[in-house]
Formats: sequence, structure tokens, C-alpha cells
Amino acid sequence: MFKLIKTSGAARRGTLKTAHGEIQTPFFMTVGTAGAVKGLVPSEIRELGGQIILSNTYHLHLRPGEDLIEKAGGLHKFMNWDGPILTDSGGYQIFSLTDIRKIKEDGVEFQSHIDGKKIFLTPEKCIEIQQKLGVDIMMCLDECPASTAKREYIEKSLELTTRWARRCQTFASQTRRDGSRSVSTTTPLLFGIVQGGMHADLREKSAKQLIEIGFDGYAIGGLSVGESNEVMYEMLDATVPHLPEDKPRYLMGVGTPENILEAVERGIDMFDCVLPTRNARHGHLFTSQGVIRLKRSEFKDDLSPLDPECECYTCKNHSKAYLRHLFMAGELLSLRLNTLHNVAFYLNMTKGIREAIEEERFAEFKDEILSNYRK
Amino acid sequence: MFKLIKTSGAARRGTLKTAHGEIQTPFFMTVGTAGAVKGLVPSEIRELGGQIILSNTYHLHLRPGEDLIEKAGGLHKFMNWDGPILTDSGGYQIFSLTDIRKIKEDGVEFQSHIDGKKIFLTPEKCIEIQQKLGVDIMMCLDECPASTAKREYIEKSLELTTRWARRCQTFASQTRRDGSRSVSTTTPLLFGIVQGGMHADLREKSAKQLIEIGFDGYAIGGLSVGESNEVMYEMLDATVPHLPEDKPRYLMGVGTPENILEAVERGIDMFDCVLPTRNARHGHLFTSQGVIRLKRSEFKDDLSPLDPECECYTCKNHSKAYLRHLFMAGELLSLRLNTLHNVAFYLNMTKGIREAIEEERFAEFKDEILSNYRK
Repeated sequence: MFKLIKTSGAARRGTLKTAHGEIQTPFFMTVGTAGAVKGLVPSEIRELGGQIILSNTYHLHLRPGEDLIEKAGGLHKFMNWDGPILTDSGGYQIFSLTDIRKIKEDGVEFQSHIDGKKIFLTPEKCIEIQQKLGVDIMMCLDECPASTAKREYIEKSLELTTRWARRCQTFASQTRRDGSRSVSTTTPLLFGIVQGGMHADLREKSAKQLIEIGFDGYAIGGLSVGESNEVMYEMLDATVPHLPEDKPRYLMGVGTPENILEAVERGIDMFDCVLPTRNARHGHLFTSQGVIRLKRSEFKDDLSPLDPECECYTCKNHSKAYLRHLFMAGELLSLRLNTLHNVAFYLNMTKGIREAIEEERFAEFKDEILSNYRK
Repeated sequence: MFKLIKTSGAARRGTLKTAHGEIQTPFFMTVGTAGAVKGLVPSEIRELGGQIILSNTYHLHLRPGEDLIEKAGGLHKFMNWDGPILTDSGGYQIFSLTDIRKIKEDGVEFQSHIDGKKIFLTPEKCIEIQQKLGVDIMMCLDECPASTAKREYIEKSLELTTRWARRCQTFASQTRRDGSRSVSTTTPLLFGIVQGGMHADLREKSAKQLIEIGFDGYAIGGLSVGESNEVMYEMLDATVPHLPEDKPRYLMGVGTPENILEAVERGIDMFDCVLPTRNARHGHLFTSQGVIRLKRSEFKDDLSPLDPECECYTCKNHSKAYLRHLFMAGELLSLRLNTLHNVAFYLNMTKGIREAIEEERFAEFKDEILSNYRK
């Protein structure tokens, strides 16, 4: 499923085969939490070079429900995207969006953040939902302990995450054999999620336990939760070397251009983050010249394109002055044009990363981007 | 400039030549108040069959200002729309958005609804702004009396509107002769605005005064302000017969599909209205089967297209169930997909109106639409 094409130091260039096509790695997944990217249609993601979309099991389970989506022929048909889809399990959302939850050995009980309805999610149920959605890459249910949790708790928690991961794998294998559940013609991949907080030894422990179970890929969860960049990179250094070479590695929910480049350098293949889409809505735009904040008065009369090096619709057709006008006037079109550009920037950057690894100039590429983005 | 091709009763099929191309009448202008249609890019308006966009002098004067737009090469370049643009003068906005205003013979003093800045707008200034914007069709500054105003006030007010219209025409002719002001290669058209409240004789009086001055087209203002459909149609009956046959007639800010059909039947050629775009954002969609309100639970599991007779992106690619999901989840994409469809519906309907007049079956066409839209 995963094929390594080239390495440049620890940075890897490969391909990942899924039921909806092969993806070139490293890649960035545009976030479409509720089955839609904020303000963009799927064909735009494709045109910008997007290969895969990320959606969310928790959100889709609560609304509109996996049964409707299954009835619609799966999430691909429901949202009109024929490329690969990865769904996060919802572990992170359960532990960040809901105040009231009870973690039990069997699963987690929580209240919907939409209507307060009580829901009990088990590892098996989590896989079943993702199977009904018909996604290409499923994630195991994990516990995400609070960033303030003590070492003792985190250690216990990662053991629970491991036991849940085993149950996810067992359930997925069983239904895979049965052929009883899958909208796709081929079976979805299943990834385990490494936890362990900011403790290098616990990260290693978690990784090794998951590898023993065996997954199609390994995600690193519980990072970018308020720790410094240095600590994040330390945790990657403590985890990645223990992950198998022949499986893809996914750093969940990360991050800034700098974070992504540093992580690629450490051997990460997959990313997702709300930063490009969320920041776009706040007029915070990523460009080849660094960040542009549209509200700044210096752009009031600036009739030059947003980013002269970008080929996206926004940059090809509009000036900074027009984009600033739309932003200041609260125009709906502002959200769309800004989002389109920021997604273009992230997808172009990951394309640049792939080319740089192929051409053995990743270090130079990284320095070039970071000259505008290192804080 | 205006050429009548065919009539069917009082309904007219014609063409209107502008600096940015010839427009087929009757037509509907998609509203882009602040230099942008809510959530749509100009190329989408073109693809949906939109011929002309309406923008607003008052809004653009306050933000970002006509000087910036002139510097950008005019509103067409600023917003990236190469078709015709009509700007409303802002009279309606001054009288509906601002609490504090003083009407004087020379013009109107008011406070910006954005930053409270005091502004004094004269008829000449109003034309100058529109010339700087470089639009194709300019509107005279008019006074829009409150719908509760007494007959006496409305009569005085329409005389003021006439005097202002004369000053607009004088100023426009002068600058036209000078060649001193125009981003366009050809000179913009100038329309007068008939007022007169809900009094048939005052409407006639206003129309005749404006015709005496002479304009490139005649608008009917001050309707759709809370009166019944019947009264609106009575006012049209009292006005249109007095307007010259060889000039286009524009019913401002109207209206529902029914309003538009009834007005076309009475000889109106031009329309604009926020209804399709605003209602879209509230999940109120116009379809060939009548209005669909997305929040209704009957559409929860409805996997059929929004409107089987519509060829727009939304209808070709998405189900009612998906559109309802996006609407209920408050997804940004919902606003865009809904707006796209409602604009498509209005533009398709006006295209249908044109074809029906050509083929001498306007009455049947009207009945067909109204069977789903008459309240």
C-alpha cells in the first residue's frame, strides 16, 4: 500500500495506495470536518492539487448520521468528492468539545455538543461508523488526555488507547473477512494513533505497542496542543525512529508551514490542519512573501496581486486592495477567495516538498520557505 | 441604445447597448452592492447567463471610496467583471440606512452607517462618483420618502427629485462634452427615477417631468416598500403607459417571481432584487417546483436533486439531503451553493421570459411559473 520512492535524510517521498486512488507523499489533507471544506467545492480542491480530504467521524455521526451517508452511497458520493478520504475517529473532538464524558474500559460516554444527546462510542462502533461512511483511511478510537494531565494518567491512558486500537483492528479484520461492511470495492486502511503526551519514553512505548498489533499506517496524536515547537519536534524525534519504514506516518492536526517542514525533515508523510482555512476567514493569508494580514492599512491602496508567485484564482484575478475591501466590508466572497488562496499555498508547499525531496534539495527548499515563516 | 425587437401585449423583448456590451431585455441584475455578489465570483454569474451586475454608489463611496476604484481602473477591473454594471445612486440607502439626515435643496446630508462620518451628497457629486466608478448605467440621485409619508410631502418630494434629476442630467452632459470624466471609452447611460408614492396621479406627474428633461432610461423607484402586490401593480399601470416606448424601463428592487412576471406583462424591461441571494442564505430556495425551505425535516433523507429542471452546479452535483445537512450545520459552503442556485433560477426565469415573448407565448409561460409561485 505504501511505497517509498526516495529519501533525503529522514525526509521521505512515496506513494500511498487507497481505494480511491494513489496519493503522492508527503501530502496535506484539506479539512472538511462535516463533509464540506469551508466555502470550497471539491473540484476546486482537485484543481489546486489536493489529493485527499479529511473529514470527521464524530461530527458526521452526530450530524447528519452515518446511516444517511451510507444510504447516499457513502461520503464520497454524499459530498461529491471522488478522491481518497481519511476520517479522524473523533477521539480528539470527544475530549475537546464535550464537557461531560465518562471514559470506561468499553468506550466513552459523552453528550453531543449539538443537542446534548447521550452517546456511547466504543472502538467497534467507531470503526463501524467509518465503514458506513465508506472512507479510504480509518483512524482508531483513541483517548486524548488533557495537556495538563500527569505522567501517571498519560501512561494509563496510552495503555487504554492501545487496548482500544487492538479492538479496532480486530473488528476491522473481522468485517473485512466477512465482506459485510464496505461501500468501497477495496477495504479501507486502518491507522493506529500514538499517544504519550510530552514524554519521550511513553511515546516510544505507545508506538511499539501499536506496531505489535500492526496497522496500515501510524499517526502521532496529542501534539500541537499548546506545547512549544521544540517540544513537538522532540516528541517526533522520540517517536518516528521507532515507526516501521514501510508504513505511512501521519502527524495529526499540524500545523504551520514551519511545523510541516520540520516534521517532513523528521520523516512524516501526512498532515492535516485547520490553519489555512480558519486563518483565511480571519484575513490571515499565507504567501510566498510571508503572512499578509488583510486588515492592515498598508494594503488599502495596494493594487498588486496577493501573491505574485501563486497561480490560484484569487491571485490571478484580484488585488490586495480588493481583497482587503471585501474583508473589511464583511463580504461573503472574502471568505471564499481567502480560503481558496490559503489552501493553494499549503498544497503548493507540499508539492514543492515532494519535488525538493525527489531532487535532493529538501534542505534548501525548507530554508527558502522558512526565511519568510520562522518566527 | 435601446432597440425593441418584439412585443407580446405590453411585454417587450429588446436589446440595450452599453459601453460593456449589449444586454438582452427583459433582464435581471444580480446584486453586488459593495462590488461583489454575495459568495459568487463574476465568472459564475456569466456562466449562469447573467448579463449585468448591479452595485451601489452609496456603499462604494463610503467603502472603499471611488478614488481607489478609479485608481484601480474602474469598478469593472476592481471586481473583475467585464460585463455591464449599473449603479444605484444611493438615494434609497441614504433614506433607509441612516437615521440622521438633512434634506436640503442642494443635496442631502447624512452620517455614514459605517463610521458615522458626515457626508453631503449633491446630485452632481452623485454623478461624479458614478463616473469615477466607470459604470455603464448611472442613476440620478432621488429622494425616497417614507412609505408612511403624506401625499403633500410626497408631492413636494417628487418635485425635488425632478430638480435633482435635471442637475444630474446637466452635470452628466457637461462632463460628457468635456470628455473629462469617464473610465469607459463610451459614455455611460443615465436613468431618471420616477417617484410619487402610491398615488397614481403623482406617478404620472413625476414620469412626465422626467421625460421632459430626457433620460436614456426610466426607473420606477419607491415600490416594494411594504405595499400589497395589487397596489404595486396599480402604480405600474399608472406609470408605464406614460413612459416612452423607445427607452428601457427599470423597476427598482423588485421582486418575487410573481412580481417580475406581472411587471414584464406591464412593459418593464429591467429588474434587480436581493431576494434570490438573501433568501439563499436563509435556506429559502426557488425551484421549478416552488419554494423549498431546507430546514424542513422532509428533506432530511431526500437524496434527489434540489431542482431536477435546473442545470446549475448545485443541482447537478448535490442532493437536497446534502444541502440540508450543510445548512443545518451552518457550513459556509451552504451559502455559496444555495446562492448559486437561486441566482440560476432568477436568470433562467428571465431567459425563459425573453424566449416566451419572442415565441408569443408569454401568457402561458407566466401561468406555468405562477402555478408554483402565486401565494
